[in-house]
Amino acid sequence: MQFELTKEYLNELRESLDTGIETPILQEVSELHPADIAEILDELTTEHASLLYKYIGKEKSADILIELDEDVRERYLDSIGAKEIAETFIENMDSDDAADIMAELSDKVKEEVISHIQDEEQASDIVDLLSYPEDSAGGLMAKELIQVNVNWSMLKCVKEMRKQAEDIDNVYSIYVVDNQQKLIGTLSLKKLLLAPSTAKVEDVYFKDVLAVKAYEKSEEVANIMEKYDLVVLPVVDELYRLIGRITIDDVVDVIREEADKDYQMASGLTQTAESSDHVWALSKARIPWLVIGLMGGVLGSLVIENYEGQIQIHPEMAIFIPLIAAMGGNAGVQSSAIVVQGLANKTMGFDSIFSRLFKEFSVGLLNGVLVSALIFGYNLLFSDSWALSLTVSISLITAVVFATLLGTAVPLVLDKYKVDPALATGPFITTLNDIIGLFIYFGVGRLLYNYF
Amino acid sequence: MQFELTKEYLNELRESLDTGIETPILQEVSELHPADIAEILDELTTEHASLLYKYIGKEKSADILIELDEDVRERYLDSIGAKEIAETFIENMDSDDAADIMAELSDKVKEEVISHIQDEEQASDIVDLLSYPEDSAGGLMAKELIQVNVNWSMLKCVKEMRKQAEDIDNVYSIYVVDNQQKLIGTLSLKKLLLAPSTAKVEDVYFKDVLAVKAYEKSEEVANIMEKYDLVVLPVVDELYRLIGRITIDDVVDVIREEADKDYQMASGLTQTAESSDHVWALSKARIPWLVIGLMGGVLGSLVIENYEGQIQIHPEMAIFIPLIAAMGGNAGVQSSAIVVQGLANKTMGFDSIFSRLFKEFSVGLLNGVLVSALIFGYNLLFSDSWALSLTVSISLITAVVFATLLGTAVPLVLDKYKVDPALATGPFITTLNDIIGLFIYFGVGRLLYNYF
Repeated sequence: MQFELTKEYLNELRESLDTGIETPILQEVSELHPADIAEILDELTTEHASLLYKYIGKEKSADILIELDEDVRERYLDSIGAKEIAETFIENMDSDDAADIMAELSDKVKEEVISHIQDEEQASDIVDLLSYPEDSAGGLMAKELIQVNVNWSMLKCVKEMRKQAEDIDNVYSIYVVDNQQKLIGTLSLKKLLLAPSTAKVEDVYFKDVLAVKAYEKSEEVANIMEKYDLVVLPVVDELYRLIGRITIDDVVDVIREEADKDYQMASGLTQTAESSDHVWALSKARIPWLVIGLMGGVLGSLVIENYEGQIQIHPEMAIFIPLIAAMGGNAGVQSSAIVVQGLANKTMGFDSIFSRLFKEFSVGLLNGVLVSALIFGYNLLFSDSWALSLTVSISLITAVVFATLLGTAVPLVLDKYKVDPALATGPFITTLNDIIGLFIYFGVGRLLYNYF
Repeated sequence: MQFELTKEYLNELRESLDTGIETPILQEVSELHPADIAEILDELTTEHASLLYKYIGKEKSADILIELDEDVRERYLDSIGAKEIAETFIENMDSDDAADIMAELSDKVKEEVISHIQDEEQASDIVDLLSYPEDSAGGLMAKELIQVNVNWSMLKCVKEMRKQAEDIDNVYSIYVVDNQQKLIGTLSLKKLLLAPSTAKVEDVYFKDVLAVKAYEKSEEVANIMEKYDLVVLPVVDELYRLIGRITIDDVVDVIREEADKDYQMASGLTQTAESSDHVWALSKARIPWLVIGLMGGVLGSLVIENYEGQIQIHPEMAIFIPLIAAMGGNAGVQSSAIVVQGLANKTMGFDSIFSRLFKEFSVGLLNGVLVSALIFGYNLLFSDSWALSLTVSISLITAVVFATLLGTAVPLVLDKYKVDPALATGPFITTLNDIIGLFIYFGVGRLLYNYF
């Protein structure tokens, strides 16, 4: 079944590499799936990794390279020459993986590597692919595919496909093109199996085929493949000529990255940080939001400073400062999370912004009244100040309603102006609502303390 | 290209349904992809939906049903009889989709539907599939697959596959089994195309095949398919006999749901809430965390109440309450987000919990010193109280370090005890760190005000 890497396994392997004796564990590792070997290499020092590499057959090298962590791969490729990169790795890869690896190299090395690729067609495919932005359909696609002409017979199809298939690991779809290379449909493998060998493609092919243009954004590609449950999606140029295909495994990475990015923003991280990163990288990912939070805190302090006299007379007002601030923050984040997720998953429906805000106003009011009633009950029991009890409850309703509305509106507005709505979530909305909550609290307090 | 649903399009369609005249838009809708038709039906009232259904060919009905929103589907299935469910829908579906739909029905209706299924093999497949938990490999798999015996010749393979393929839409993999029905490998379509028709399966098949047991958790299935870039994964029983296969499109849904769930928890939502839901559903998803936040606020108020005398003498201390509380909360959420994501993506590496905490201590100290220095500089310029300036900066470092450590430790501990670590994120960590921050702030303040 699946291989599971443990600390003990790693230690045994390290020991074995240190002694330099060919132990069974080295044999075992070299027979693992490339993804598993890459996982092991990610954990080893460069010295151990290059020792291990010697035991692993050449034919697996390319597959392992693709699966390595980006920084581990970079370190490794820096240590070998352009000729070896071309011959050991690039020439044994599918065009999409080759282009992804090439895109990570410096321009100088990239040129050198290309000049060392023997297969001219492959070199031209890679140069083509490198011209597309990384986050576009063109950046995701591979050039290897199986295509048949609409005028061919089944027999000719099988013959031609045999030629084409030599370059391809997995056949998922057979594309049908016309004489101008325009994509006009697909031929299912089932049809190919079932149709008599004298049948013509035009009699049995499926005309309804979904394709994307090469410059389509990768998120849009992911949305299409997810919505229509596709395993492979053809890519066409502006003239609808077939130029490549995208497989779902590459799109799964896009989906995962998108989800991770939104989660990170909501949690106040500005860049991908993994717990295995160095202290400095971990720190850098957090500082921007901490500084913004600090500025928010300073603004909040200015609001309170403004009411310092009031606190001197009624020090009990200070007691509920964190409650009001936190509740506004929480309510705001909840609202914006629903909007951000709705926009990402395209489940927003067709309400106008006003009906949406009205709905959120109702939700905010409902929840605000509930929590205010709870805290009012608590204060009835434990506080002897009517002014304070009323101030807390009234400002809590108001703060929750405001936060709910802002939490909904800000991501919607950002989205309208093509800014990533996830920017609105997390520390930003929390900080903003903290400050608004304080304003409301002391404003209501000043008013009420005059009457009670 | 891809169909894009707009509000105008919906309105035109509704009008056309109301008038009852066969307009071009009805023709257009009926020719759309089932996923697009489902998207339209999700937006219509039950009356409009059933009117529209009449224009759409029977053959698309089953595909549309699978794509509908769960509540829309439930409403629709409630309105028709068990016989129609069996004949129009279940019999025209793959076994995995059929089982998913059946699982949504009440036990009584389920039995009735099964009794109406004509194809006995399909009925038995569905009953089999219904016995697996929804979130297991068995719950994700379909029974339809192409398998060949290791002793067959290529010619026999093609003949047998023709029979099997009649039930199958897409052929992604050909599985090789021995005489005991045990899964022993795969036959690539490429090999089938390239090998001479007299070759035997045992000479050309690929022996290394990854499979999962039927009771494997669906998250684990997603991890395996993602790690090994698989498009389809065979499922075996305890004796390693081939019983089904899982395709990546179903796993994409699992990945999406997992990511959404973590995001929702981090944002303080307790259940899936979509912005198109009703006010009450939207409210209910938020109330639990709001009430927990409220309790946190009350605890915080008790901390401050304890120091009320101090605030009366030094009301300026109240000014920085929100800053300290918010910064602790932010730092804690950042740490726990990194842990939660590392656990979900399996990128945690092999450090022990102590070395991890030491690393986070360094990060917390680094960031704490930085933000404390910033606020100290600010206070040097704008505050005339040395006691306050020092109190704020010292307690800020302490609160950030504490929050960072807690943010790391809590999800790790939860994970160790098999509780979902995502529970630790969002409002929970924030609230806990708010309170700890207040304790530190007033503790440090009481100490320092004695000296200055």
